[in-house]
Amino acid sequence: MNAEPPPLLLALDLTGTFAFGLNGALTAVRAARLDIVGVVTLGMVTALGGGIIRDILIDSLPPATFSDWRYLAVAAASGLVAYGLGRRLDRLAGPIIVFDALGLSLFAVTGASKALDFRLGIGQAIILGAITAVGGGTLRDVLIRRIPTVLYSELYAIPALIAATITAVTISTGVYGIPAAIGAAAVCFVVRLVGVRFGLNAPGPPGAYGGGPGSADRR
Amino acid sequence: MNAEPPPLLLALDLTGTFAFGLNGALTAVRAARLDIVGVVTLGMVTALGGGIIRDILIDSLPPATFSDWRYLAVAAASGLVAYGLGRRLDRLAGPIIVFDALGLSLFAVTGASKALDFRLGIGQAIILGAITAVGGGTLRDVLIRRIPTVLYSELYAIPALIAATITAVTISTGVYGIPAAIGAAAVCFVVRLVGVRFGLNAPGPPGAYGGGPGSADRR
Amino acid sequence: MNAEPPPLLLALDLTGTFAFGLNGALTAVRAARLDIVGVVTLGMVTALGGGIIRDILIDSLPPATFSDWRYLAVAAASGLVAYGLGRRLDRLAGPIIVFDALGLSLFAVTGASKALDFRLGIGQAIILGAITAVGGGTLRDVLIRRIPTVLYSELYAIPALIAATITAVTISTGVYGIPAAIGAAAVCFVVRLVGVRFGLNAPGPPGAYGGGPGSADRR
Repeated sequence: MNAEPPPLLLALDLTGTFAFGLNGALTAVRAARLDIVGVVTLGMVTALGGGIIRDILIDSLPPATFSDWRYLAVAAASGLVAYGLGRRLDRLAGPIIVFDALGLSLFAVTGASKALDFRLGIGQAIILGAITAVGGGTLRDVLIRRIPTVLYSELYAIPALIAATITAVTISTGVYGIPAAIGAAAVCFVVRLVGVRFGLNAPGPPGAYGGGPGSADRR
Repeated sequence: MNAEPPPLLLALDLTGTFAFGLNGALTAVRAARLDIVGVVTLGMVTALGGGIIRDILIDSLPPATFSDWRYLAVAAASGLVAYGLGRRLDRLAGPIIVFDALGLSLFAVTGASKALDFRLGIGQAIILGAITAVGGGTLRDVLIRRIPTVLYSELYAIPALIAATITAVTISTGVYGIPAAIGAAAVCFVVRLVGVRFGLNAPGPPGAYGGGPGSADRR
Repeated sequence: MNAEPPPLLLALDLTGTFAFGLNGALTAVRAARLDIVGVVTLGMVTALGGGIIRDILIDSLPPATFSDWRYLAVAAASGLVAYGLGRRLDRLAGPIIVFDALGLSLFAVTGASKALDFRLGIGQAIILGAITAVGGGTLRDVLIRRIPTVLYSELYAIPALIAATITAVTISTGVYGIPAAIGAAAVCFVVRLVGVRFGLNAPGPPGAYGGGPGSADRR
């Protein structure tokens, strides 16, 4: 069992869990037309997957999900809430993207923060923040047979890396706190949504697409 | 290395391993038309996947699979047996379903039991029982690119949760033993097969399907 | 954190990491047409996946990837190199196969070697060598929605098992060293490429394919 986590980490983590749970469950309703067990299951996998991968990699076992019932409760609740909202199917596209961006942003911060708590280096903490952020969504996409967003992303891994970097640097320099954590998550959230809104993609391999000047690539 | 597991846990675990190994290997023959390496590999992944996930999550590493050669031997043997039976292709659908239900039932019991041995709470033990039960089959489905049964299930996760709950409650109240373990597994097994036989699904999201009175949903 | 690994293990591991990173990233360019983030991500998953699975299963956490920055650096570098080479798309098929075979061979050796360092038995070390060898490529294939090579393989798991067996036996008998390690990897590499060149597959299930005398099966 683990000690009680710092309150800021816990609050951000549970909020991110709830956001990813809503996202995964709404995705189950919209994209895969699953029944209630499938909806709640996909919600919980999306909500808890990133944190479980993080806790395995930093050797914090059993993962917080299992040593702290609040994660399980929040994840299950998010799935049930989303299931109840399933009637309004035609309005789900927006919320699905927003909840995904919110979970991504918060988990990038908590992943980097917890990695430093476990005495990993700054570089590793940044990578781990990104893995935590994209992990749950990647499991979600694999389970419903979609190419994971992180692979073809409109700015998905990059904003997570930015938020994890801000978090790791502010922790290392001693200026981390609620404003820094919220700020880091907000930067990730805005960059992600701007990327979705304007269809900005990371650049493709040189020459691979013909990539004329009309393409949406940017550097 | 781990200590010798309790005999009841070991017996149920190895039986479940053999059942899931037959299931995975027969699935490889029937659904994916794999060669001997693929058949044995998919059998072993299905047989060992749930237990490995369980042992990672409860921090019992290396997993029993690796610290106890009997798991590896049983899993490999089940794959070879199923490969040898591959000729009778047209009769495989029934046994595939039965072996899957058997593995599901036994692993739900052993997962919950081992979680309590490792001092997790009752709620966590129930969830872990279900994860152990559905884990191997989910890996199997992902590897051969099927939507995992647990997501669209005709009563797949629910009977596993029931068996895990019976197990966890009987252990907590001190009445656990061979009868309770077999009884819990039998309930799961019967509910699962009844669900398959009558096409009973968990209910879909309200309004999502039009869900007229002729639908197979039930509550 | 882990102690500094033996120099031979580290050298083979980093070389395998680089080879698998090139393979995964070139696969991302060729098969999935991903952008730079996707290319580097798929390269890193392929490069680091096998070692991470190995380190989880032998309870060497955090995995070497995170406790030793050289793995992350090599994996990221391989992805960037492959991205830069993306222009020569029509020549990629050969290198993709060769890099995959190289990673397979080296990781089979390092997986078995590290398992014995962690006091697992010979049988377990052989299986773990094979898992390390095929793990990264399997994650790669799952992420881009291909049936994993290990399941339908033209001699994929078998040469890995051979190399892991040579490694485990030579370590147990005290004759392991640079020649044995290189020799074991070379056997795997040659068997794998011969299998690809001549389309040799492991035998299918008896009667499953009709399998006439003109088939490519061999025993």
